[in-house]
Amino acid sequence: MPRSVITLTTDFGPSSPYVAQMKGVILAIHGDIELIDITHTIPPQQILAGAVALDDVYHHFPPGTIHVAVVDPGVGSNRAMVLAEIDGHFFVAPDNGLLGLVAHRTPPSRIVRLEAHEFWSHPISPTFHGRDIMAPVAAHFARGIEFSQFGTSQEVVKTLGSLDAVVTTDTAAGTVLVVDAFGNLTTNLDRGMMPEAVGELTLRLDGQRGQVVPFVTTYADRPDNQVVALVGSSGRIEIAVVNGNASRLLDAGPGSKISLKW
Amino acid sequence: MPRSVITLTTDFGPSSPYVAQMKGVILAIHGDIELIDITHTIPPQQILAGAVALDDVYHHFPPGTIHVAVVDPGVGSNRAMVLAEIDGHFFVAPDNGLLGLVAHRTPPSRIVRLEAHEFWSHPISPTFHGRDIMAPVAAHFARGIEFSQFGTSQEVVKTLGSLDAVVTTDTAAGTVLVVDAFGNLTTNLDRGMMPEAVGELTLRLDGQRGQVVPFVTTYADRPDNQVVALVGSSGRIEIAVVNGNASRLLDAGPGSKISLKW
Amino acid sequence: MPRSVITLTTDFGPSSPYVAQMKGVILAIHGDIELIDITHTIPPQQILAGAVALDDVYHHFPPGTIHVAVVDPGVGSNRAMVLAEIDGHFFVAPDNGLLGLVAHRTPPSRIVRLEAHEFWSHPISPTFHGRDIMAPVAAHFARGIEFSQFGTSQEVVKTLGSLDAVVTTDTAAGTVLVVDAFGNLTTNLDRGMMPEAVGELTLRLDGQRGQVVPFVTTYADRPDNQVVALVGSSGRIEIAVVNGNASRLLDAGPGSKISLKW
Repeated sequence: MPRSVITLTTDFGPSSPYVAQMKGVILAIHGDIELIDITHTIPPQQILAGAVALDDVYHHFPPGTIHVAVVDPGVGSNRAMVLAEIDGHFFVAPDNGLLGLVAHRTPPSRIVRLEAHEFWSHPISPTFHGRDIMAPVAAHFARGIEFSQFGTSQEVVKTLGSLDAVVTTDTAAGTVLVVDAFGNLTTNLDRGMMPEAVGELTLRLDGQRGQVVPFVTTYADRPDNQVVALVGSSGRIEIAVVNGNASRLLDAGPGSKISLKW
Repeated sequence: MPRSVITLTTDFGPSSPYVAQMKGVILAIHGDIELIDITHTIPPQQILAGAVALDDVYHHFPPGTIHVAVVDPGVGSNRAMVLAEIDGHFFVAPDNGLLGLVAHRTPPSRIVRLEAHEFWSHPISPTFHGRDIMAPVAAHFARGIEFSQFGTSQEVVKTLGSLDAVVTTDTAAGTVLVVDAFGNLTTNLDRGMMPEAVGELTLRLDGQRGQVVPFVTTYADRPDNQVVALVGSSGRIEIAVVNGNASRLLDAGPGSKISLKW
Repeated sequence: MPRSVITLTTDFGPSSPYVAQMKGVILAIHGDIELIDITHTIPPQQILAGAVALDDVYHHFPPGTIHVAVVDPGVGSNRAMVLAEIDGHFFVAPDNGLLGLVAHRTPPSRIVRLEAHEFWSHPISPTFHGRDIMAPVAAHFARGIEFSQFGTSQEVVKTLGSLDAVVTTDTAAGTVLVVDAFGNLTTNLDRGMMPEAVGELTLRLDGQRGQVVPFVTTYADRPDNQVVALVGSSGRIEIAVVNGNASRLLDAGPGSKISLKW
């Protein structure tokens, strides 16, 4: 039987010793685990960016993988932490919206609020529940403690506000989720929302005046500074500028409202 | 039986191929190992920063873990390298102070100086003993070679100078160890050195004039630019400036002398 | 029996979620694998830098290791991808020169062009063959699928142009491969090309006027701004400036022609 896989997603920065502390805590509880970093460069405390990273990556892992995610601006407050089963995977995270996109795609099949102190590492640091609560809970779950032992059930996880895309007969409207290092705008719109044969789209951002942009499959053969729409490698529609920065040119960023009319 | 764990701590920079070379050398000698990065962003050749990272992280790992640490400005000189057992963990490192904090907390139970060439990878690069001596020693130890086979015993590891904290009835005096990315000063003072009920402290840095600062548990509810003392997630007392940079504002850094009077 | 080792070398940047997607795909196909990052900071699309990283690192790993390398500016074009056995190791990569240095050192013993769609992850993203083709091929090979099942044989992998060093009785001539963060020039010349007793060399770069430089073993005891030649930790001859930047001072970089006369 292959070993359990635990993934880690945090905003601790690359090569942070805090990540290593979490790994040490996990291995000290249960040694037979494959530890995989998803990313530790979520911008500090940007829950939405963490939610997108989880949603883009989790489903590539084998069913049963345990994903620990720590983007936790509310640490020390009374925000809940949860263990959730969603789409055959398990998630341990603060209940602050970080699981909002994953749970929006597939409703959780069960959720418990983390309450059973006997699976935590004492003393609990008031500033690092990732190490002292979430990491040990993931390790105890991996070694076979029953899901229901970690706390009492709850029905839903926190959502991320108005992130629903609205699709009509000629328009898909949604939100910019993330801006990457190249200034590309990643949205919550996906290819399936549009007809097959679309070649051009009218792009409107935050109530700006609409502009017609080509819907392309690659950047190749487009002139510099051309604004284009395309499908990224995770299936999301992205707005890019050929050899330029879409976020700057179009004055848009995370949370900007976007509509595409065909 | 779970696999052996070997951790790596270096100043090679993030995603350095030199780290991968060390991992390859280890796996080529003994495959059944869990390799964990503690950090590779120790500032180049800053032994003290490496010592703090080791001291903050090692004890979260399971007993028996082998920690390889390479911050090695003396590579190619005749500085010794050691295998040391400390607090139930094993350390392979140059004997240049890198184990100074770990060994200060718990005296080593045994130490050998690395001398047995048959456990090294030949030819030995004059500039990379981490790959050619320390990594293979760790791997051979993990696969069962006896501790005493690696060289002759020595009594102590190199210390880090005057890093002892001095605690009197009303004052704890010590040293700033590290400045983090936010300018926070991490010290060698810890919570246990002070009475439970302390609310305010007189902070003195490098003989500067003393100032009274609150001893807080979180930054919340403090005005910007307020200097505060608090306990970090590793138990060390830190000096911070709310939404500011303590190192710059207080003109202090690694090695600065600090005293806190209650 | 120890687990299979799969290494990853890409230009995706540190802590990229794309790397995690590849790891998830691999583990979902075959769980019993040790995943090791060689580096993800190859400068974007710089095939030569990726080829050097592979060549410097692969041979430290145990024979049978599977090295997946993705520096792939031609993704979406009709460039081939290959599985190649070279020097007892296996490589999965686009056939764009990335294996050029490894294959130049040791001719491949067998190569197949990746064609068998049943070992790919569908649907195939037009921009991410690393995740959808190369990662699953590596995982299926690790779990025991026969080499020849992945496609039809080919004889050679793509080379990297005129990277042969030319050695005469008094001169070794070659190419600068990489400039590191300190400005040191790494070349395709190695120590074995020169007589044992060389103490001084006449260095000529890109047809510039020659200058006599010492051939040293370490930087120690040399004055600042002295240009020196030395052997790096991977055996390659490097040109450095003591406490300075050789690339800037000598106006040379990747692709510059270099000759050393003794």
